[in-house]
Amino acid sequence: MTTVCVLGATGLVGREMLRCLEERGFPLTRLVPLAREGDGGRRLRFRGEEHVVERARPAALAAADLVLASAGRDASRKLLPLACAGGSTCVDNSSAFRMDPEVPLVVPEVNGECLDARPTLVANPNCSTIQLVSVLEPLRAAFGLSSVQVATYQSASGAGGAALDALYGTPETLDVVPAVGPLDDDDRAEEEVKLERETRKILGLELPVDALCVRVPTRVGHGEAVWVRTEERMDLALACEVLEGAPGIRLDGRRGFATPREVEGTDLVRVGRVRRTGEHGLCFWVAADNLRKGAALNAVQIAERLLG
Amino acid sequence: MTTVCVLGATGLVGREMLRCLEERGFPLTRLVPLAREGDGGRRLRFRGEEHVVERARPAALAAADLVLASAGRDASRKLLPLACAGGSTCVDNSSAFRMDPEVPLVVPEVNGECLDARPTLVANPNCSTIQLVSVLEPLRAAFGLSSVQVATYQSASGAGGAALDALYGTPETLDVVPAVGPLDDDDRAEEEVKLERETRKILGLELPVDALCVRVPTRVGHGEAVWVRTEERMDLALACEVLEGAPGIRLDGRRGFATPREVEGTDLVRVGRVRRTGEHGLCFWVAADNLRKGAALNAVQIAERLLG
Repeated sequence: MTTVCVLGATGLVGREMLRCLEERGFPLTRLVPLAREGDGGRRLRFRGEEHVVERARPAALAAADLVLASAGRDASRKLLPLACAGGSTCVDNSSAFRMDPEVPLVVPEVNGECLDARPTLVANPNCSTIQLVSVLEPLRAAFGLSSVQVATYQSASGAGGAALDALYGTPETLDVVPAVGPLDDDDRAEEEVKLERETRKILGLELPVDALCVRVPTRVGHGEAVWVRTEERMDLALACEVLEGAPGIRLDGRRGFATPREVEGTDLVRVGRVRRTGEHGLCFWVAADNLRKGAALNAVQIAERLLG
Repeated sequence: MTTVCVLGATGLVGREMLRCLEERGFPLTRLVPLAREGDGGRRLRFRGEEHVVERARPAALAAADLVLASAGRDASRKLLPLACAGGSTCVDNSSAFRMDPEVPLVVPEVNGECLDARPTLVANPNCSTIQLVSVLEPLRAAFGLSSVQVATYQSASGAGGAALDALYGTPETLDVVPAVGPLDDDDRAEEEVKLERETRKILGLELPVDALCVRVPTRVGHGEAVWVRTEERMDLALACEVLEGAPGIRLDGRRGFATPREVEGTDLVRVGRVRRTGEHGLCFWVAADNLRKGAALNAVQIAERLLG
């Protein structure tokens, strides 16, 4: 008997979590979709049955075996400690606990061994981080990393349903915004800070990561232009071989690539346009579905490994 | 008496050239708009008068004092040598002559002194190159440059009118494409090769420039995420001071920035989100109207200086 609570079930990521649980035949016997007060009473379908969304209450969370949370940082801070204390295992997609040294921050293909100790609270990384580290890890293992620079092409869905709706205007309103989230005192946007810190924590490296995060007018799918500097001399053929054999990613070749639109609804992190830059450098393009591998799918994969 | 031919007058850049000539009170006494056969006979307004677009013929070009050409590489290769031989001065927006060592490639604010010798043929750089070198040149003068990495966010208008029309679909079709132009044997896209070579030629440096050029679904305005490595130690305050005093650009501050939509119809290259990265590095965002400073305006500025 496994009861799974999805907290934030009516949001873009929450709905994708339900889809992933269903598609992957996740071994749950009872689903409890929860949401903020305003969305309580809404109905959604899961495995052919209608479920009524309940208002999120601590008791419901504590009674679950597993909580998949994607209702924002404040809701996670308030509710997940209570759920853990009540005996639930929680996977949190918010940023609330990601940098907490007690909480593992996990991409199963990269540092899944953090789950072997069966932690009761696991943080799901930021969407841009997940697709980046999926490609960095095999390169780190083969060449060592000395620095990373990344320019992102982040879709509207990463900013939630309202941003997605705003695309339905005229082309005159489509714009590119080189600031994702508020800027801190060091002039870094929130998304850039997340990408830099989370990458270091997941890889377990004091790696200089410099990100310029940009919102672009696409619906779903994030792209990244990435430059890495490596400790060992770069060998393009070896880099491609290493990327081809790595879990969770698909190499589209040195010349090939996947666009954000092409990765929508798919599970793999795609890497292409792979080129050597200088003696110790590699440049490449990465794309993934930010709602799936960037959020819901990675959370469900964490849960599968925790319960497996 | 100055007769000006605009070759390719019905295209996106050609029409912008007419606007720039008009807005800036360019000292011309006669305008001759030319286009490919299919567009001959079309009418357009200039300074309140209607002009009939003529089919491009060598005789018309050779009879002009000045030719502003933006009708593609093949038309320029075929027609401009005849125009020059006939005594015209030509400013060419195509890529036909940009890398020709005999032909200056000019951004007036950067290497305008190339025009002092009154060359009869001058090449106008690629749109992405113009906005990049406008910012690189003051940084080069102050710190020296050792390498440049740039990820572009290029609008549909850079691919012509048909690409612009394609934005008028549904948001489901909006996509980001990390390849602008065909790839060469070194896996570089045509736009990347232009950006790298032209930047070196304009700055007169054997500078390593590595570009990943990406088309994004915006109408007008190109963005660039840029990382530079400098020879001298980076001083952020000095960098900002230098950028503030440089011609043709506007610094939006360390935290500020301009979006592509905001620069549409404007003349300056905008630079913002300026940050130090490491001891010898600077990261920043650049945006400019690709049809104006990136093409038509820069060509007209070259012409002004040639005739001035």
